[in-house]
Parts: sequence; C-alpha cells; structure tokens
Amino acid sequence: MGNAVVLMNQDVGVEDGAAFTSQSRFPHDVTVSVVVSLGQRAIRYLSKRRQERISLIGDQLCREGFDLVLLQEIWSERDYSDLKAKLGGSCPFSHYFRSGLCVFSKFPILDTLLYQYSLNGYPYMLQHGDWFCGKSAGLVVVRIAEITVNIYVTHLHAEYSRDKDAYLPHRVVQAWELAQFIRHTAKAADVVLLGGDLNMHPGDVGIRLLRSWVGLQDAFTEAQHFEGCEDGCTLIPNNCFTVKSELQSFPLGIRIDYILYKAVSSFTVECEELRTTTGTVPGLDIPYSDHEAVTAVLCIQRRRQTASVTIDAAMPALVEVLSEARTEVYVGLLAARRQRYSSGRMAVLAMLLLLLQVVGVLGGVAAGQPFPALSVSLLAFLALAILLFAAGLHLFHSIEVKMLQGTEEQMEMAMRGLQEQPLRH
Amino acid sequence: MGNAVVLMNQDVGVEDGAAFTSQSRFPHDVTVSVVVSLGQRAIRYLSKRRQERISLIGDQLCREGFDLVLLQEIWSERDYSDLKAKLGGSCPFSHYFRSGLCVFSKFPILDTLLYQYSLNGYPYMLQHGDWFCGKSAGLVVVRIAEITVNIYVTHLHAEYSRDKDAYLPHRVVQAWELAQFIRHTAKAADVVLLGGDLNMHPGDVGIRLLRSWVGLQDAFTEAQHFEGCEDGCTLIPNNCFTVKSELQSFPLGIRIDYILYKAVSSFTVECEELRTTTGTVPGLDIPYSDHEAVTAVLCIQRRRQTASVTIDAAMPALVEVLSEARTEVYVGLLAARRQRYSSGRMAVLAMLLLLLQVVGVLGGVAAGQPFPALSVSLLAFLALAILLFAAGLHLFHSIEVKMLQGTEEQMEMAMRGLQEQPLRH
Repeated sequence: MGNAVVLMNQDVGVEDGAAFTSQSRFPHDVTVSVVVSLGQRAIRYLSKRRQERISLIGDQLCREGFDLVLLQEIWSERDYSDLKAKLGGSCPFSHYFRSGLCVFSKFPILDTLLYQYSLNGYPYMLQHGDWFCGKSAGLVVVRIAEITVNIYVTHLHAEYSRDKDAYLPHRVVQAWELAQFIRHTAKAADVVLLGGDLNMHPGDVGIRLLRSWVGLQDAFTEAQHFEGCEDGCTLIPNNCFTVKSELQSFPLGIRIDYILYKAVSSFTVECEELRTTTGTVPGLDIPYSDHEAVTAVLCIQRRRQTASVTIDAAMPALVEVLSEARTEVYVGLLAARRQRYSSGRMAVLAMLLLLLQVVGVLGGVAAGQPFPALSVSLLAFLALAILLFAAGLHLFHSIEVKMLQGTEEQMEMAMRGLQEQPLRH
Repeated sequence: MGNAVVLMNQDVGVEDGAAFTSQSRFPHDVTVSVVVSLGQRAIRYLSKRRQERISLIGDQLCREGFDLVLLQEIWSERDYSDLKAKLGGSCPFSHYFRSGLCVFSKFPILDTLLYQYSLNGYPYMLQHGDWFCGKSAGLVVVRIAEITVNIYVTHLHAEYSRDKDAYLPHRVVQAWELAQFIRHTAKAADVVLLGGDLNMHPGDVGIRLLRSWVGLQDAFTEAQHFEGCEDGCTLIPNNCFTVKSELQSFPLGIRIDYILYKAVSSFTVECEELRTTTGTVPGLDIPYSDHEAVTAVLCIQRRRQTASVTIDAAMPALVEVLSEARTEVYVGLLAARRQRYSSGRMAVLAMLLLLLQVVGVLGGVAAGQPFPALSVSLLAFLALAILLFAAGLHLFHSIEVKMLQGTEEQMEMAMRGLQEQPLRH
C-alpha cells in the first residue's frame, strides 16, 4: 500500500553555511534535501482517478524541483513515461524497475540492480493482491559530485490487520533480505539512502533490524526541523483513500514511509529538514496519493577524520533484535508447515475421490446399472479442480517452508557471527 | 542439468615454491585448489539411484579433502545433511541455500546472500521443470587467511535444444543478472570465485558477458596443467545419465560447468591445475553424477604493486558482447509479447463461450425447451478451465515482458555508460 518519493535538493560546495552545523565545509560538501512517500496506488483501471493524480504528482514534483524522486506502485509504463516527461527538466536521469518502483535523479545513474524478495504473501489472497505485484528492492547508483550514493527504493508487503497479521513473517523476511542486500551491495558506496513504503511501524522488528543490522539512521528522528503530520505519519485518517478500519487503534495515523540513510566511509549525513504533506492537494478534493509524501533535506559532508564505526556498545541490542526477528520467522515457519500439510492432505483426498468415482463408474457399467452421467461428470471435474488447486498450494507452501527455514538459518548464522566478532558497518 | 563442486586445497604461507611461479611469496600467499562440477540431478524420488550417488560423492569429497565444495541440485535437505556429516572433517563450515545450491568450506563463512533470477523458463513446460527448481545465485563470503573471498554458486536454465533454444533469452537474462549481482556485491572482496553449471558453451554470449563485463577468467583456459575429458567437457556421451540426442552435434561432449575467478584489489589468482572426472566411479557401473566434476588448484598471491586493471583495450569487444546479449533479449521480448497476446485472446474467447452458454441456457429455459444438462455443464467447466489457464498464462507472460524489457534497458544503459567512461573492474 502506498509508495514513496525521495526528493533531494543538491547544492554542491554551498557558500552559505547552514545554521545547523558549525563544521567548516570541505570542497565536496553536499546539501541534499530528501523526501519520502507520495502514495500512488495507481493500479491501472482500478485506482480512483489515477491519471489525474499522476498528473498532479508530476506537476508538484516539477514545481518543487527535487533532486531525487523515489516512487513505488507505478504499475503502468505510461504513467512512468508521463512522469518522466514532466520531470525531465529537473531530473533528466531516471530508471523504471517495472515492479512498480522508479527513481528520478538530477545526477547521472551509473548502475542499477533489482532484488526480488523470496516471499511476498499468497497468490490465493486475491483481495490483497500483494503477491501479484512482485515486491522487490531496486538499487540505483548515482554519483553526486565525487560521492557515490547507493539509493535503494522498496515496498514491503502490506499489513492488513495489526492484531492478526498473517504477513508478518513474510515482511520480516523481506526486511532481512533488504538489509542483507544493502549490506552486500553498499560496500563501495559513500552514502546509502533507503526510501520507501516499508509498511512497518517505527518500533517494529523489521525497522529495528534495518537500523541496527545495517546501521541506517531514521531521517524523522534525526531531523533538526520537522513540519507535517503529527509524529510524521504518512498513513492518516484524513486521506480519503485510507481504509478507516485499519487506523482504529491509531487515531493520528501511522508512519510507514521512511527515509533512512547512512554514511559509509569518510562522510557524514545529517538531516536538516523533514516534511510530510498533510492531506488534499491545495484547491482540490483529492490527495496526491493514499500516503502522505515525505521530504528530507540532507547534508552530506566529508568527515575531517575517519571515525571508527564499530558499534560494540549496541551489540546486545542487535542480538536481541535478530533473535526477535528469528522468532517471527519461526512462527511463520510453523504456520507454513501446517498449510503445506493440509494442502497435501486435500490433494490426497481429491485423488481418492477421483479414484472412487472411476471404480464406481466401472463397477456400475459392469453390472449394467444406469449411469448418472451429469452428476458423475460434475463431481469428477470438481475433484480434478480441487486436486490441481491443492497440488499447486502444496508446492507453494513447500517453497515457503524452504525460504523461511533458509532465512532462519541465516539469522542464526548472523547471531553466531556477532558473538565471535563485533559488527563493522 | 548437472551441478558443480568447487574444491579448494588451501595452504597458507607455503614453503615449497610451486614450479609455475617465479614470484617470491608474501606472507599471505595462498595456494588453493578449486574444482567445479560433480553433477547431481538428485531430485528426490525421481533421480536414478540418488542415495547411492550422494553417498559416493560424499566419500569421494571426503577422501580428496577439498577446501571448498560447491554443489547444485541438492534438492533434499536429507542429502545435504548426509553430505554435511561426511564432509564435517575437512569442511566444518557449510551453507544450504534451499534452491538446490550448497557450499562446504574449510574456512569460516562470514555471510551469505541468495539472489533469485527474475526469469527461469515456463511453469507449463512440465517436462523440463526448470521453473519449479527456482534458479538462483548464492553468495558465500569466506575469509582465507586475511583474504576476503566472495564465492558464487549458481545453476542457469538448461538448454534442451541447441537449434531451437526457446530458453536462450531467459538464460541471457540470468547471465546478465548474475554478472550484475557479482559486480555489485564483490566490491569489498579481494577474490571472486564463481562455480557452477552455467549450461552454456564456452563461446556463448552469456559466458562472454561474464568474462568481459565482470572481468572473470576461465580456469580452464588459464590452467597451467590440465587433466580430464577432452576440451574440459563436463557433459559427455560416456555418462549413462546423458541424453544422447542432446550431444548429436558434439561427439566429444560440451563444457557447461565452469570455474571462473578474478582478483579484485591487490591480489592475483592463477590456476595451477584443472581436472575433470572421466566417467564412472572406479569399480562401479554408475558415474557420480550426470556431469563430470571439475577441480582446480588456484594460487592466490598478494601483488607486489597494485596494477591498473582498467581494460580500455577490450572496450569495443565488450560493447559488442552487450549488444549481442541485448539482441537475444529483444528476440525473447518479441516472443513473450506474442505469447502474451495469444493467451489474452484465448481468455477472451473462453469468456465469450461462457457468456454464449449462459445466454443459450437462459433462452432455452425461457422458451420451455429441453435442457441438455450434461453437455452444457461439461462445456461450461471446460470454458472455465480454459479461462483460468489463459488468464494465468497472460499474467505470467506480462511479467515476462516486463522483465525482458527491464533487462534490455539495463543493457542499453550499460552500453551508454561504457561510451562515456571506461569500465573499471
């Protein structure tokens, strides 16, 4: 649900020292403004007033002249092309990942990579539909001045019910895979920027995993100046696309769209300003999206001396987060095993029913009894349909079990590794 | 088809200078022997004499005392556990990726990551079954002495017909994604090692892509000493599991299992020795696997001075390879678009048939005519089944089109990038 926009205003070698920092500026200091989340929900033919909203978003993004724009849920190639045409002036470089993710950039895009999460809900949950959207994480490498910035954009599985969240294990697996993907691909980057609809509350285990295991900082908590919805919420009751029942326990709304960042090598990143939009488009009755947009101004500076970033102090907390995540995955594993078993049983029963019919028909024909052709054919078709469905389900849940098991083992290995040597970000 | 084993004999700080090098050895010189490909085809319940062969493989690997073992097509958790128990002495560390890939290592495994290819054949090609195996690339990071080695193990889509290779675009996409995955994740590695069943002939565009775009070297062509099947073939007619018709044009067999490597930073890698197995297990009538195993001895040395590895000279060749790969992807894109169109048309026709029946039945009932219940029901069921099947197919091919388009664009971006600045490995 919803999606994110990251917008950056870059100002290389700024003369006017920003008030927030007393550090002297180096030749490659970069002041960047970043924004996240301008919900889209633009499933073609389905979303309400999609084209109008896409156009509004394009106009707004163009007006503000951001340096980086990260969008999700742009399902239609035409929407991407429309946005590209509108943003061409401020962001001549762009990449469309075709899993709904796209990035517009003022800076040249050097390279890209798409990572597909191994789990993403269930195909038979048609009313939720996340499975069909193919959730993934996109990486875009840009160079700002001489700084290599790895930009990650993603969209995790939605949470449809806080109390009975059947998708929690999948979302934790996605958060883990995202964290691992960032850790492995960001080793040569100076700055890491992650923006997107993470579909998690700020205190959820997946967010804590991203913060502690990857070392990402939350632009909202780090911001020196904030303006927008209370608590930085991006899914708010005011939005006409919001399903009100989802927010019953959260009258203010929920913050589920994030800008997270980290400076890897000899750089620092500070968040000067964070903003969210606050409802409908000025002068119109519709909001840009089902989520509020998040914007941040980030300042990237060269560090005067490379500091050690080993965070031994946070070690026990990290082990705790990993252990909690592992428990969630394990809970999911038990559920997946149950479903694998029951779908297998259903397939066997359907096969028995088919066999029984064959025997019955053959027996009846041999005894010269009348043949109830209609009911037998209908029943056989039904049994066959159930058999195919159950077999497909069994295969699906077998893969799910494997993936959950694999993730659990990887987390265990990470915990073991932590006990042997401290983490280096 | 088939799988790979990489086995390394490590000898840190060897005293006895190997004959092949006249360079003086540094404290962290490492002599490594590497092997690739000990076919498995161990699909549970299906493969011939699976358990016996797993046991033979385990014994053989244990006897030779390799340092690194890379296997594919280990589909059953139990087989992995059996191998783990047998190899525990020489390779105490291991990781099972649950997509058939596993790695056994003498050296501690620091981290792992699994990358799933976006395309992998078609689910309805049941006789080939690659789709269900979920092809992917596994990354295992190990530290040998003070050298960080990124080990990649993978298994690409099989080629069932050389002349009419319907899977070529998918395999090229996989090779491209593998190359990109390695490039993005190996930036902090000293040595990169890729082993596996790539299902490509040595001159195929995918292999050339991996060599030129990632900068990998082929252990077979670099080896100072070779022993085994002619031309290093790993799929040979002698093997009783080989489908003879596949090798009609290649009487010697095909080399489809590879050990590729590259030294990233201030290291060099040389292949001292390469070997393949040559048929059946001594004293028995079955081979270890459907592919011959490949073994290499690699020598990793610290470079006395860091050399520049920008390969401007190879630039035109690289652009050519990229352009060729892009053409293959484009051919696949056209085919996928055709299939998307025809499956969509089939779905529409099935829906029309259903509608027609409803109208016919309602009309018949209104006119008080007799109702041919059996044939109408059967036909309705058939139309419904076709509708569901065609809709699923349409969705599948729509995703395929998107992925092929995305890959084509990425390749185009890479080519544009190359024209602007030279490639740095």
